[in-house]
Amino acid sequence: MNTQFEECLKACLECMESCNVCFDACLKEDDVKMMASCIRLDRECADICALAVKAMQTNSPFATQICNLCAEICEACGNECKKHDHDHCQKCAEACYRCAEACRKMAS
Amino acid sequence: MNTQFEECLKACLECMESCNVCFDACLKEDDVKMMASCIRLDRECADICALAVKAMQTNSPFATQICNLCAEICEACGNECKKHDHDHCQKCAEACYRCAEACRKMAS
Amino acid sequence: MNTQFEECLKACLECMESCNVCFDACLKEDDVKMMASCIRLDRECADICALAVKAMQTNSPFATQICNLCAEICEACGNECKKHDHDHCQKCAEACYRCAEACRKMAS
Amino acid sequence: MNTQFEECLKACLECMESCNVCFDACLKEDDVKMMASCIRLDRECADICALAVKAMQTNSPFATQICNLCAEICEACGNECKKHDHDHCQKCAEACYRCAEACRKMAS
Repeated sequence: MNTQFEECLKACLECMESCNVCFDACLKEDDVKMMASCIRLDRECADICALAVKAMQTNSPFATQICNLCAEICEACGNECKKHDHDHCQKCAEACYRCAEACRKMAS
Repeated sequence: MNTQFEECLKACLECMESCNVCFDACLKEDDVKMMASCIRLDRECADICALAVKAMQTNSPFATQICNLCAEICEACGNECKKHDHDHCQKCAEACYRCAEACRKMAS
Repeated sequence: MNTQFEECLKACLECMESCNVCFDACLKEDDVKMMASCIRLDRECADICALAVKAMQTNSPFATQICNLCAEICEACGNECKKHDHDHCQKCAEACYRCAEACRKMAS
Repeated sequence: MNTQFEECLKACLECMESCNVCFDACLKEDDVKMMASCIRLDRECADICALAVKAMQTNSPFATQICNLCAEICEACGNECKKHDHDHCQKCAEACYRCAEACRKMAS
């Protein structure tokens, strides 16, 4: 395993966790309506990160393509999370951007 | 494939679809806050139905145990959906109860 | 729901089932070694079809991109399955090609 | 988060990785036929570990039940892997047993 691969795997695992935690926290906020897009994107992003992790850990012949798609979804999720002041959203946005970058490096 | 197996598989596929549709519709409702538990349970239920479908279609040695857990989650999701008047919630509750029953028959 | 959407959803569900059934059947063949690529691609393909189904049923903003990736993986799985004479492989190849085509139409 | 929860989460992530790595390695062995049960159980186990991780990270009301099922599948996968001398199987067996124990502690 090379460094870019390992960093991408780590970034996907951290992003998956941040999105899962953010999903749960958003559902408990007072202003759930305002968090609707965040809730949706947290699930999209956690699910594609999980698929990217599986692809990398199993040496999938499609790991590159899955990581490219993961980068796109991470960026969209990061852009949504960044709009909200909640700690879990800000933390999630950072994890999403880091993961998008790591996926792009891995796929390039 | 026997009848109980086929009925369970069909019920899981229909419940998965109803939960996915209900999840999307709940996120678009005006009263998202009131739908928070429904949104969460729709995801739990769609995900375990998807796992039960995979288990049945691949002849998993754990199909029975997964269907038992699926029945429990379907019932909880049905109980939550039933509380809400939205058409997608009422339809989802029916699909959840049918799936819970089909899973219990399959697993017994 | 329009026709292309419904046809794509149906094709993904059928392809997922064919791949899951083929995975199980390949593992029971005498010549498992010869089926190794098929076993691997059946899982890749069933998993991306499942993700495409979830994306379509939840109105995901990434349904198009996921279906594009699904088409690519379906085609690779179809090409592998087509090489093997087993009924489950031939049937799976057909479902994969149909799904690839339906995904491309939906995504275009 | 308490210690048992964190240990269970960590054990599930490590077991998921070991099973994914073992799945890939088994498919590349000369004696794939002998590894057929291992290949199947690696997928069952990696998939239920992934679900348990999602359940714990999202505060699922079914985390306990999912971890109980995860323990059962981990034990079965560990028992199969233990039979094979390959390093990836022996390593996987250890991760499976650790995960089974951590899931049982968490669920008790």
